[in-house]
Amino acid sequence: MITLSSDFGSPYPAAMRGVMLQETDARLVDVSHEFPRQNVQTSAFWLTQTLPYYPPAVHLVVVDPGVGTDRDAIVVRADEHALVGPDNGVLLPVVRELAQEFEVFEVVEQEVEDLETDNGTRQVPWPPDPASSTFHGRDVFAPAAARVHEAGIDSFEDDPGFEPTDEYEDLTVPDPAIEDKAATATVLAVDDFGNAITNIPGDVIEDVMGSDIEVNGSTTPVRHTYAAVPSGQRLVTVGSHDNVELATNQGRGDDAFDVSLRDSVTLTW
Amino acid sequence: MITLSSDFGSPYPAAMRGVMLQETDARLVDVSHEFPRQNVQTSAFWLTQTLPYYPPAVHLVVVDPGVGTDRDAIVVRADEHALVGPDNGVLLPVVRELAQEFEVFEVVEQEVEDLETDNGTRQVPWPPDPASSTFHGRDVFAPAAARVHEAGIDSFEDDPGFEPTDEYEDLTVPDPAIEDKAATATVLAVDDFGNAITNIPGDVIEDVMGSDIEVNGSTTPVRHTYAAVPSGQRLVTVGSHDNVELATNQGRGDDAFDVSLRDSVTLTW
Amino acid sequence: MITLSSDFGSPYPAAMRGVMLQETDARLVDVSHEFPRQNVQTSAFWLTQTLPYYPPAVHLVVVDPGVGTDRDAIVVRADEHALVGPDNGVLLPVVRELAQEFEVFEVVEQEVEDLETDNGTRQVPWPPDPASSTFHGRDVFAPAAARVHEAGIDSFEDDPGFEPTDEYEDLTVPDPAIEDKAATATVLAVDDFGNAITNIPGDVIEDVMGSDIEVNGSTTPVRHTYAAVPSGQRLVTVGSHDNVELATNQGRGDDAFDVSLRDSVTLTW
Repeated sequence: MITLSSDFGSPYPAAMRGVMLQETDARLVDVSHEFPRQNVQTSAFWLTQTLPYYPPAVHLVVVDPGVGTDRDAIVVRADEHALVGPDNGVLLPVVRELAQEFEVFEVVEQEVEDLETDNGTRQVPWPPDPASSTFHGRDVFAPAAARVHEAGIDSFEDDPGFEPTDEYEDLTVPDPAIEDKAATATVLAVDDFGNAITNIPGDVIEDVMGSDIEVNGSTTPVRHTYAAVPSGQRLVTVGSHDNVELATNQGRGDDAFDVSLRDSVTLTW
Repeated sequence: MITLSSDFGSPYPAAMRGVMLQETDARLVDVSHEFPRQNVQTSAFWLTQTLPYYPPAVHLVVVDPGVGTDRDAIVVRADEHALVGPDNGVLLPVVRELAQEFEVFEVVEQEVEDLETDNGTRQVPWPPDPASSTFHGRDVFAPAAARVHEAGIDSFEDDPGFEPTDEYEDLTVPDPAIEDKAATATVLAVDDFGNAITNIPGDVIEDVMGSDIEVNGSTTPVRHTYAAVPSGQRLVTVGSHDNVELATNQGRGDDAFDVSLRDSVTLTW
Repeated sequence: MITLSSDFGSPYPAAMRGVMLQETDARLVDVSHEFPRQNVQTSAFWLTQTLPYYPPAVHLVVVDPGVGTDRDAIVVRADEHALVGPDNGVLLPVVRELAQEFEVFEVVEQEVEDLETDNGTRQVPWPPDPASSTFHGRDVFAPAAARVHEAGIDSFEDDPGFEPTDEYEDLTVPDPAIEDKAATATVLAVDDFGNAITNIPGDVIEDVMGSDIEVNGSTTPVRHTYAAVPSGQRLVTVGSHDNVELATNQGRGDDAFDVSLRDSVTLTW
């Protein structure tokens, strides 16, 4: 199984699917191609909300504002999963959720060579030479994901195209500033319902669940479920991600609270 | 085969896919995740336009404004199909299209237990305890759909997690008010071309096909095909759903007729 | 394998998937359903950017502003691929990329008949009678694609539902007007990053790579990669399609250059 995640929208993911299907009969499963464009931080958050629910798989991730520069392509083995993507930190937060220890490999240049696949022997340039300067998802990462899948998550490093490395870019979810009865948060993500998801862990507001809280100075009920307030009314809740979320029952929380991705929000109680 | 329908947009469906792929090797087929958010009525309409074209399958449907309340999770067996979703009526219109008689089961609480799957034995909380309060698609409905699939559409009630029930929420498509030469309709759905689909059966306007009709007082040609009027001109037609539709050839009917989802429209002829 | 391409958005492709899954167990792979609505020219361009990356497959393509008129349904065999779609030229540009020589077949009317499929024998109207006037994707093209797949890309013409023809609509990508140190281009497509892709071949600007160019009179750097200019700054580059592209590093080129699909753009250097 190979999952696909990107900020590509449509139709670029189709080229990645085709490239992989040339090399493998693996099941392809789309995670999302609607990650916020070139936003490594929010994409990393969404990966933590989706990939841990999968059985062992190769996970192709392409959110790559540095495409065409000399940033590396990497593969990370975490427990029974392998993640393939650019070395810009996007893989690291979910890697830490998948496994306490992990190994990082760099995709390195090789001669064109014969590759044995489910579909017979093919001549595979590796990485493609010349790759485009603007679409490494198609030209580097998708071939690498297919190759990891065919070689096996346990043993792809037997392929000389992957070399162990200790150097990689890291990325951590920004910590909120939490005081006794106040927290200053960042909006990590806004989902398609308009729920604004912050970086405050849900247990921070456990004691005020059922009562009220101030959000940017405005009183708001704190409830377990959206439907605990009337339709159209705003609330603070703890979402399925276990983070504090600004929401509106049957409406958009981002509009009601006037917040956008990456905005700062102050909660006091 | 398991089909997936929701109002989730992206990337929440990916978590549902992962949860199911932990338990089953079934083919997963997306129907849509772009149903109008938390709109049970229009989602029910779109299900009638899509699910009847499928071979026997488990159909997972999550449009769930009451998530986190005590509304039940149900499974409906209709002919060779099984539909899994919230007990808010969204399943019922398509169920009636799939079968004259149908059976309803409630998803009930059980102890954690061992579940035999294609991928070996797993400990499955059922339903998950604690499930989130905001994402039963991932925590209740997707596991239930996988479990129905593995148990078999014919025999899933052998699993004590599903109990027959006679109580469920119903939903019917609203009837239009049809008089001798006039009809007052509701816009049931607007598709991505901008076609505004009403609840008036197509045969109501059969006699005026080829001539003109008044829509909210404005004269409009009634034609079999979009291309029967010049590009950019509006028309009334009977769509693939056999309902009266307000359209524009190579344009958006909703804009041209100034109508939106759930609006009332008067036709006279 | 059957790929699906359309301008349908959601949920109409789900009906096409269901119809095909009634007849075949083929892998279904979405290319895109977000082609610009009823835009044959841009859809044809995107097909050239995606289908050539696939292994041999049946490619279902439905961008069909003439639905319900007497335009034919055709199947084109190009090398080991078969393309199924309306006879409006949308298939031809990618067909020429897939093969130097190709054969065109018309989908012709037949009696209802028994069809042997992976799922047993089914009575198949062919083409459906009556088909809807507005959704031939579901009623004509999807059944035809499934039937080509089951009959085999090499031999589907043994089925009397497909007749060779020499008459079909053609379509070519418009040529840019290129002079010594100037070019007048058309914007062929705008991708989801906002990159405006022109019809100028990349090698036309090879000599000015690394220096500047005038776009509609305004000086702009020409670079190999987006990241070669500061974040938020515009540039001219050669995209993965080998065409000249108007872009912004980590931003939208269409906004920065104030251009839209089908606009004319003048480059001088």
